[in-house]
Amino acid sequence: MTSPPLILITNDDGYEANGIWALVEAAQPHGEVVIISPDGPRSAMGHAITMNVPLRIRKFENPDGIQYYRTNGTPADCVKLGQRVILRDRKIDLVVSGINHGSNSSASLLYSGTMAAAIEASFEDIPAIGFSLLDYSEKADFTAAKTIAGEIIAKVLSHPFPEQVCLNVNIPKGNIEDFKGIKITKQAHGYWHEDFEERKDAFGRPYYWLTGHLVNKDCDDDACQCALDLNYVSVQPVQFDMTAYKHINDFKFLEK
Amino acid sequence: MTSPPLILITNDDGYEANGIWALVEAAQPHGEVVIISPDGPRSAMGHAITMNVPLRIRKFENPDGIQYYRTNGTPADCVKLGQRVILRDRKIDLVVSGINHGSNSSASLLYSGTMAAAIEASFEDIPAIGFSLLDYSEKADFTAAKTIAGEIIAKVLSHPFPEQVCLNVNIPKGNIEDFKGIKITKQAHGYWHEDFEERKDAFGRPYYWLTGHLVNKDCDDDACQCALDLNYVSVQPVQFDMTAYKHINDFKFLEK
Repeated sequence: MTSPPLILITNDDGYEANGIWALVEAAQPHGEVVIISPDGPRSAMGHAITMNVPLRIRKFENPDGIQYYRTNGTPADCVKLGQRVILRDRKIDLVVSGINHGSNSSASLLYSGTMAAAIEASFEDIPAIGFSLLDYSEKADFTAAKTIAGEIIAKVLSHPFPEQVCLNVNIPKGNIEDFKGIKITKQAHGYWHEDFEERKDAFGRPYYWLTGHLVNKDCDDDACQCALDLNYVSVQPVQFDMTAYKHINDFKFLEK
Repeated sequence: MTSPPLILITNDDGYEANGIWALVEAAQPHGEVVIISPDGPRSAMGHAITMNVPLRIRKFENPDGIQYYRTNGTPADCVKLGQRVILRDRKIDLVVSGINHGSNSSASLLYSGTMAAAIEASFEDIPAIGFSLLDYSEKADFTAAKTIAGEIIAKVLSHPFPEQVCLNVNIPKGNIEDFKGIKITKQAHGYWHEDFEERKDAFGRPYYWLTGHLVNKDCDDDACQCALDLNYVSVQPVQFDMTAYKHINDFKFLEK
């Protein structure tokens, strides 16, 4: 008898976020689930890792008997700790991260702790998927996202997964009946245009809150942002070679 | 009379690191320099940004009359604050980040705060370069790196710079006379293999220090790691579209 696939679940919103428990429900029918999550919110951490403070791991059990681990690390740290410490004697079949409260389409991918966890897994050829729901609310409704995540997990586990790749899955807000379908997409060419809100503290000193909005410069049908605008689930294959190949020759003047 | 180029300097090692002052010396002959750096070390921050605490900016002047700003943010935040707050009425001609104490070749690019600052600038088409010296020591000798950085800054300022690209420059340790030259490279296919050192605290509880080494799987002559091994300066053009285009078809089975 073959053992069920070992699925490592993490996120960047911490163990208290509804999104991670929605993902546990989505993944549980498809394998043995181990949760290793940050002990608090780590949104917008990008691919940060922890080098200057020691990492701690605490083991818990929830009322349903699911064992989970909380660490003081980042999402990328959680995957490293999973591979090298907590599950070091076992083969991880799939890493799933999320379900993130908020979109990770377009340039948000680069800021995302959710996706850093998936990319971290892809460095060592572990199949990995980051899931995000287009709803930043703490009380977001994960019903549709949970169904989609379960479907994608099941399909991915029964297909070969290429090396050094992971998936960035973004799911629209709303009812699943209203979704147009699931589309394989490319990263939309967009960026966050920031505005800093300047305020004064109680002593009259200025401080700044980062605010901003995504500017999408990409109208191609196959761009993630456009698929989402049309109410498709966007599935973007992600790799980590950031070389600008088409500009190699533009910089030959620097060679000597 | 045209005004000299406006050069924003930042880093991820903080304002006290020798590397940033080496970069100031390298850049000063080529333009007007403004320093906006983190108020302490922010290594391995990846593309983290600060959303949950307010950002503060403090202005200082060093004994040579150079004005510089320190923020409690990440390297990416420093660039955003430069664009939107500190230099909001001016056109930034070049962002330079570093000189980092330690290599940012291969997969290290994704963990690097130094490079996140450069990538952040490239989101909005500001030419940007991250510089790193292959020496992690706080007391590293920046003599050769300073010369190389000055040369590259001068050349970049007098050439057209493509949009949505930045440069990842890694400089070998040692004397400039021993360098083989400067090579345009691609990101070597490698990853960090982590080992966690388990220790016990004063109460007998375990904690973990992240350690590891870079595993290079790429022997191509034009890979950054190989150029560095041969004692070349590596200049990698970097872009931020992480779509795995060659695997788009591999995931069509998920469409519906």
